Formats: sequence, structure tokens, C-alpha cells
Amino acid sequence: MLSKNKIKFINALKEKKVRTETGLFIIEGDKMVTEVLINKKITVNSLIAIPQWLKKNRYLLHDGIREIAEVTEAEFNKVTSFETPAGVLVILPMPVVTYNENDLAGQLSICLDSIQDPGNLGTIIRIAGWFGIRNIFCSPGCADCFNPKVVQASMGAVLRVGVHYIHLDALLENLCSHDHYSIYGSFLKGESLYERKLSSSGMLVFGNESRGIHPSLKNFIHVPLTIPSFSDVTGHVDSLNVAAAVAIFCSEFFRNKARKAQ
Amino acid sequence: MLSKNKIKFINALKEKKVRTETGLFIIEGDKMVTEVLINKKITVNSLIAIPQWLKKNRYLLHDGIREIAEVTEAEFNKVTSFETPAGVLVILPMPVVTYNENDLAGQLSICLDSIQDPGNLGTIIRIAGWFGIRNIFCSPGCADCFNPKVVQASMGAVLRVGVHYIHLDALLENLCSHDHYSIYGSFLKGESLYERKLSSSGMLVFGNESRGIHPSLKNFIHVPLTIPSFSDVTGHVDSLNVAAAVAIFCSEFFRNKARKAQ
Repeated sequence: MLSKNKIKFINALKEKKVRTETGLFIIEGDKMVTEVLINKKITVNSLIAIPQWLKKNRYLLHDGIREIAEVTEAEFNKVTSFETPAGVLVILPMPVVTYNENDLAGQLSICLDSIQDPGNLGTIIRIAGWFGIRNIFCSPGCADCFNPKVVQASMGAVLRVGVHYIHLDALLENLCSHDHYSIYGSFLKGESLYERKLSSSGMLVFGNESRGIHPSLKNFIHVPLTIPSFSDVTGHVDSLNVAAAVAIFCSEFFRNKARKAQ
Repeated sequence: MLSKNKIKFINALKEKKVRTETGLFIIEGDKMVTEVLINKKITVNSLIAIPQWLKKNRYLLHDGIREIAEVTEAEFNKVTSFETPAGVLVILPMPVVTYNENDLAGQLSICLDSIQDPGNLGTIIRIAGWFGIRNIFCSPGCADCFNPKVVQASMGAVLRVGVHYIHLDALLENLCSHDHYSIYGSFLKGESLYERKLSSSGMLVFGNESRGIHPSLKNFIHVPLTIPSFSDVTGHVDSLNVAAAVAIFCSEFFRNKARKAQ
């Protein structure tokens, strides 16, 4: 059963302020919780579940789960973020993420300037996970990666990709000074993504959903790139969702690697 | 001002049943409404707006707008679907969409099997608009393309891309019999998207968010393709959001066209 205080605490974790204070966040849903529990290295502070879920998934329980609370459906409904709850959630410590600037040289990384929609941020983290990208750098104006909607859209990739909140100006200025390090930006006008010879490492910069990349960052971008549009409808401006743009950029940067590896 | 009946009617248009009965749907928000009104060929049944919006955008008004209702913010809040309303929406007749099977031969088209998330469907329509894809074929199990959330995520591309609800088995069976027509499918296991020589026309088939492409459709797919994953984390299965997969497939199919055109 869940005490009133516990219900209040779980709901409070939906707020960034409380997550920052406690260092905890929530992962909800059958698929994602299963994935968390299978990896026994992940410490779980609390597992909150209805009896049916616990009965079916007893094999997933392990000593690293500090507290297991069996709750009624009515109780679960008081803490869920889902419209159709699966009856299970876990509370976890946020992973501690670090990076070494020198290691970035041999990798492809992503910078996000003020991505505000939680669904977009989560989808971008999921795409990064698919392409094995280790680090995403978010400006302080981005949505919080431990917001339940972001965690959900990331399908748990937020546990595998390092998401760092940092002032992008300072980061890009430093990276600019590294020899042979390329910083690419996604723009509506730029060199065609399909024409440019792309390096297999460097930084991809994407901007806010409406305003694009902030002018202060543009000086640090060596190569402004664009995804060519094939629309033949005149009289309006087509645009691509930023997560779709990230997917296309990542695919284009990794396709050569895939072909060389064969 | 808005009568009680009108408020009820506008809210009823958020339901598919009422949209089907009336043949009408809603487009909301400053950017998308502006785009609708600039194109004077689009008939508008009603424009509902607050005085500030009307004052600023009087130049957009034209004779094809059958009714203009100036409403207070309080009234607008009773009909909006937005959390932070921009104070403007239009009610339009759904565009009549038709296609000719023979014309599909020279184009790239998309089939969607039971895409249920409105955000995903809208994003896919927006991607199709960007790449100039004219037709999307949806199984009856897909979300409705005139659902306000789909319209919003499509950023109005639903007005430019033909979205047809149809039994995909019958469509694909017919298309299969055309000579030199290729039907490609997106799978977790298949030939690498980057290795296969791709034609610049044909059909791309994408499946449901959790279950993938329905087994009954698999027989019609000539080429099962997959986007290679570069994740080096073991012990879990990465996956890509279906809209991200559509973005990557479209980019890969069109990139050769872009390069040839230069």
C-alpha cells in the first residue's frame, strides 16, 4: 500500500525542482521497467507495482531493489503519468554523467539549443542511442531529460546516453580550438547534407523548434548544412520536425561508416 | 461572440465521428492559420479569433472566408485544444483526396499499418510534405489524420499530402502485379538500407509502433530493409521511433535524386 506522503512524493518527482533536490526520477511502463530490472547493475530505490504485474514478473526482482511496494490499481492511478497505466513504475537515482573533452574528438556528438518539446528531446535521445552516440549537450533552455515525458519518448535511452546541461557557447568555443574538429549545424539554408563530404566524428548542432540555432552559436559552426526539400508546392514554407532532422543527419553521418564496415 | 451551440459544435469536431458526419475539421494556431488564409483557394467555413489577432492580421481576410467570429479570450479558451492558445482557429472542409493507381508507378509513396500515436502520424505527414511525397496510405487502424493533434504535428502538411484510408492488403496485392514496382518494408531485421540499390519510386511500408508490420502484409513486400544500429551497449534491444525511421528511409531514397540533380 501507498501512504499519503509517498503518493505526494512520487507526484512531486514530476517536477524538475524536486528531481534536482532528491537526485531521483521515475521510469514507468512495463517495457521500460523490465529493461531496467534486467540490468541488475542499476540500483532501484522503489518499485511500485500492482499485484498482477508482480505475480507475472517475479523473476525480475533482485537484491538491488531497495523497496518493493505492492499497491492496488486505485492507488497506482494516483501516481501514474499514463492515460492507460501498465501498473508499474520504478524510482531511480539519476545516472551520473561525465565526459572528457579530449575523448569527443573521435566521436560524433550532438548539441541541442533550447529544444523545448519533451517528445522531441526524448525522441532525439532515442535516436542517439540507436546510432551509438555517447554524448548530447543541452543548453540550459532545453527540456529536462528526466521529465517523465522525455524519459517515455526516449524509451529508456536516457539511461545509456550521457545528457549534459551546459552553456553551449563555452563548449563550442573550446571545441573550435581543437585541430581537425568539425562543428556542423542544421539550418534551413546551407550546403546540401548530401553533397558535403562528412567526417565520422565532430559535433552536430540543432536549434530551437521555432527560432533555430541562436545567433551567438553561429560563429562556432564550421559547416552550415541543410536537408534539401523536394516539395513542389509553392507559396508556403515547408519545415521538418527537429527530431526528424536529427534522424536524417545521424543516418547520413553514419551511413558511410556502415558501408565501410562491410 | 460564440453561442453555446457553436462552442458545443467546435468541441464536437474534436471527435472523429462528428468530423466524418460533417466533413469538417479544425486548424488552430497562428502559423498554420496564416498559411491557410494566404492560400486564397482554400475555402474556410469559419474563422474564430480574438480581437488582437484580427487587428494584427486583417490583411489575411478574404471573400472565401464564409464566417468570421470575433470572440473574447474567455470564449476562445472554451474551444481551444492548446495549452497556451494563440487565439485563432479555422474550420475547414476536409480536402477531397483521390489517387490513380497507375500514377503511383513513377512516385515514392508510403503505407502505414496501424500507426496509432497522433504525434507520429502528424510528423510522418510533415516529413512526406518535405520530401514531396504525394500519397500516404493508412490502414483503417491508423489514427485519423484530421485529429487536432495530427493536424498540429503535421504543421498543416495534411492539406498538401493526400492521406488515404484503405485496406492495405488489397492495395499492395494490386501494386504487386505491376511490373518493376518495388515494395519496400521497414523491419528490425532485413537488408541494410545503406547497402541496397534503391529505386527512386515505389512503396515504403511501416508498421505499428509496438507490433511492426502485420504478417498478412509481409507477403507483398519485395525488399525487407533495416536501418543498421550502431549501439555498442549490450543486453538490451534499441529501437527507433517510427517517425524517425520514416525520416531516415525518405532521406535515403531521395539522396540519390538530390545528388543526380546537381
